[in-house]
Amino acid sequence: MSHPFFERHQKVLNGALSAIRSRTYWSAYPEIPSGKVYGETAKADGQAAFEAQLNKPFPLEQPGTIGRVGGEVSPYGKPLGISYPKPDLNVLLKAAKAASPAWSIADIDTRVGICLEILARLNKRSFEMSYAVMHTTGQAFMMAFQAGGPHAQDRGLEAVAYAYEEMKRIPEKVTWEKPGKGDSIKLEKKYRILPRGIGVVVGVSTFPTWNSYPAIFADLATGNAVIVKPHPGAILPLALTVAIARDVLREAGFDPNIVTLAADTKEEPITKQLVTNPDVCIVDFTGSSTFGEWIEANARQAVVFTEKAGVNPVIVDSVDDLKAVVRNLAFTISLYSGQMCTTSQNIYVPKNGIMAGGQRVSFDEFAKSLATGVDKLLGDNERALEILGAIQNDATIKRIERAPAEGGEVVLASKAIAHPLFPEARVRTPVLIKVRADQESVYQREMFGPIVYLVATESTEDGIARAARAAREKGAITCALYSTDPKVLANAEERLTGAGAAVSCNLVGDIYVNQSAAFSDFHVSGANPAGNATLTDAAFVANRFRVVQSRVPGPAPAAATK
Amino acid sequence: MSHPFFERHQKVLNGALSAIRSRTYWSAYPEIPSGKVYGETAKADGQAAFEAQLNKPFPLEQPGTIGRVGGEVSPYGKPLGISYPKPDLNVLLKAAKAASPAWSIADIDTRVGICLEILARLNKRSFEMSYAVMHTTGQAFMMAFQAGGPHAQDRGLEAVAYAYEEMKRIPEKVTWEKPGKGDSIKLEKKYRILPRGIGVVVGVSTFPTWNSYPAIFADLATGNAVIVKPHPGAILPLALTVAIARDVLREAGFDPNIVTLAADTKEEPITKQLVTNPDVCIVDFTGSSTFGEWIEANARQAVVFTEKAGVNPVIVDSVDDLKAVVRNLAFTISLYSGQMCTTSQNIYVPKNGIMAGGQRVSFDEFAKSLATGVDKLLGDNERALEILGAIQNDATIKRIERAPAEGGEVVLASKAIAHPLFPEARVRTPVLIKVRADQESVYQREMFGPIVYLVATESTEDGIARAARAAREKGAITCALYSTDPKVLANAEERLTGAGAAVSCNLVGDIYVNQSAAFSDFHVSGANPAGNATLTDAAFVANRFRVVQSRVPGPAPAAATK
Repeated sequence: MSHPFFERHQKVLNGALSAIRSRTYWSAYPEIPSGKVYGETAKADGQAAFEAQLNKPFPLEQPGTIGRVGGEVSPYGKPLGISYPKPDLNVLLKAAKAASPAWSIADIDTRVGICLEILARLNKRSFEMSYAVMHTTGQAFMMAFQAGGPHAQDRGLEAVAYAYEEMKRIPEKVTWEKPGKGDSIKLEKKYRILPRGIGVVVGVSTFPTWNSYPAIFADLATGNAVIVKPHPGAILPLALTVAIARDVLREAGFDPNIVTLAADTKEEPITKQLVTNPDVCIVDFTGSSTFGEWIEANARQAVVFTEKAGVNPVIVDSVDDLKAVVRNLAFTISLYSGQMCTTSQNIYVPKNGIMAGGQRVSFDEFAKSLATGVDKLLGDNERALEILGAIQNDATIKRIERAPAEGGEVVLASKAIAHPLFPEARVRTPVLIKVRADQESVYQREMFGPIVYLVATESTEDGIARAARAAREKGAITCALYSTDPKVLANAEERLTGAGAAVSCNLVGDIYVNQSAAFSDFHVSGANPAGNATLTDAAFVANRFRVVQSRVPGPAPAAATK
Repeated sequence: MSHPFFERHQKVLNGALSAIRSRTYWSAYPEIPSGKVYGETAKADGQAAFEAQLNKPFPLEQPGTIGRVGGEVSPYGKPLGISYPKPDLNVLLKAAKAASPAWSIADIDTRVGICLEILARLNKRSFEMSYAVMHTTGQAFMMAFQAGGPHAQDRGLEAVAYAYEEMKRIPEKVTWEKPGKGDSIKLEKKYRILPRGIGVVVGVSTFPTWNSYPAIFADLATGNAVIVKPHPGAILPLALTVAIARDVLREAGFDPNIVTLAADTKEEPITKQLVTNPDVCIVDFTGSSTFGEWIEANARQAVVFTEKAGVNPVIVDSVDDLKAVVRNLAFTISLYSGQMCTTSQNIYVPKNGIMAGGQRVSFDEFAKSLATGVDKLLGDNERALEILGAIQNDATIKRIERAPAEGGEVVLASKAIAHPLFPEARVRTPVLIKVRADQESVYQREMFGPIVYLVATESTEDGIARAARAAREKGAITCALYSTDPKVLANAEERLTGAGAAVSCNLVGDIYVNQSAAFSDFHVSGANPAGNATLTDAAFVANRFRVVQSRVPGPAPAAATK
């Protein structure tokens, strides 16, 4: 008999299983922050729940707590004042290890049922989560709700579905019967799913839930214990997640230490120590290339999955409707102030201009047009705040401020925008900088945040070549192409996908290159330095467990037993 | 339309696909070296073909050939006198790289069809291969035929089936349509399989084909070029394989440099240089733990799959029929002179003896009984030669000779057996050495070859604990358990599978712990130091390619186009 949680959520699982096969549009958790879906008082309740956490110790009782840590400051201005358990890592690891055996032998349906129940509870608390995400990442409310709530839950569910499918492909037992000259040889074989042990998931400050849920749920579903190491600037969303997971585990009769939180501060980081511990078997990391490469090089005892950074290109060859393209690009580079790992940074435009709807548009006209487009999009303050959100950390502010002096010519300067509710919010509009193609030291590096280079190339081919080379050398997660010529498009598409960048062609309207949809879009290819893993494919889950078999001779044939 | 090779072999592929799902008994290539199956003159033709290769340059024309290498000596006595192209690795890598793009974009069915055709041609040449395997590995003819021919081909086919299934799970294209307030958002998405590039497969001297085919065919099917680096002592079987693969590729209109041979000698090894080359993206290695660990630590630019060595235990608690158990164990440790990575090395027996069919049998009686069993099994010279084969290399001979002086008490001494056809053949019977459980420095290390320790333990539990710990620390591929008590069996099975060893319980008759059947047995768990990969599971293939997507807005809805 299946676990009640499994039965309760089996329909959702079936939907997800069918979606990962078809990769057409599907979603389990409604993305509209509507009272009709989430309950009329859900938003107010969520806000109240968030506010009730502020300036207090976060209620999470874990073994190995040796004090409190915390120091989150909302990008909208206020310190959160929340403290979290400060872990003695050795004790925490011991507790995770002690909790592991029962989890590792729990049947697949039980583990998957518990994962689905955790996701369902996370979904119910999407509004509370959205405030937690907003005030740690700086995302505007709508994005914080969607990306931090239902979209992250969808990504988690997607990983559960992959893990479930991967484990269920292996029969639990089988009778193997080899014909022989006389009696056949018969063996009864059992295949045991053996989890690796303890997984550590290192979160990022910008998308603490969306980027961590696939790993957390892939680890859990495949029977591993999970230690969640949030970014010190965005602890609350993952602390909430861990608390919910522990509740569900406890209710289901498991040791809650299967999921624990390992919070730290910028001043006293613990990640290096944690990910290199011999008891840690899996590490998932989202964050900077430098630290991701350090983990790849040093966490040698573990299977390591990374999503690092890249330099995402846009290649503009020719367009039908310049205004529509500019509107799309202006939104793309403004959304969450360019703090998405999928946001475009370098826009390659031939220095002699492009054809736009039969008209030649010079490079400078294109640049001006984009600058005007951004200005227009962000001209209305309220709308600007909804699109831009706030800058997650001071390093990005400094990067925006320094960029104009580091090469190129400013086409559009970054502006601060005042937030009526949060006067100290760090809100900045994008800076557009025009560079020559040969100024690669200026633009062929990740400039995280709302910093965009317009690169004047010799030709479209020059842009394609530079973008593809940079993707191979520095990494790229996305690439946007604009051309009215199918041949140019096909060539650029082949070259950029060949360099491991997910390509979007001729996007206009309400769909943007930086959006990645669960169950359909593979996020990060793993085929260039932007990361070694994909959210989510079979390779993301299949190596989180091993299969170990046992066999015993089957009963003798009927004739022989007489 | 599918490739003709694909159509020709689709039934075999379908059989393999269904077998990897059910994991019941299945085989594509007949294991009986019978004239009825392979043609009445097949054996003689195969022998003649093998002999025609001797004392000649092996006919393989490859770019970057800068001389000849070779130095294989048959364990049956004669130098083979065959030379192979000596490669300039840079030129060879360049050629592989140049051949890659066309292969990487060939459709899945074409690549898989070519793999299946290569396997079919290898199958036809199984007799020739068996002589090549026999005179490089020292396997007796029957094993050389089966393990070197059809069983290796089955393992290759198994990898092709996994690769095919894994790639086909990803749709080539899909229409993604997200409902919106007004018109839906529609994207046409394409998913491109992006191979990693160049794979290097490092072969082993004992099972050059069986252990390499999964990697070679997994790489090829997923679109990678393959450089085959045979062990300098067993080049011919892989040279034949490469030559056949190149023929098929050429016939199918591809650059044959998709598969190349990189032969070397013990004196001038090239493996380290090859596997750390920045252009090498995948490395598969079978061989010693020391070298496997070196590759894992140093081939950092590549995805690395290893099968290394371990210390395989037998735990004897109690038996029904002592004679049957002894017969089984005697054969297990004698087969191919213990040169299988699956052969048992340490037989744990309680020092106070075991119950056997209701009688107490002392430790020494058990030891004597096994010694007598081995003597009996190998008493007839002709049968002994068929079972033992020959010792692949001198290091193993020295190990056998040194072992008695390195601790413990010899229960049965190793003997040389004269081969009537090959007077210089290195044939040795197993040495059985009795040790105390606390002499771990003597027996808890891999003693490759026909060297077996009978370990006198405090109890069955002591044996289980020592065997499980050694599996975790030193690696173990197999474990044989003997007990008439279901509780003891269940406990030992859980503990040993938990340590990553494939467990066989109470084997008697014609099935042995060291046998591993394609399509059913997972070979090496990847869950202990004996290796990080499995032949074959999804994890073995899923990370040999990546998926990179592209998307373009779909046609506007019908209403909007009016």
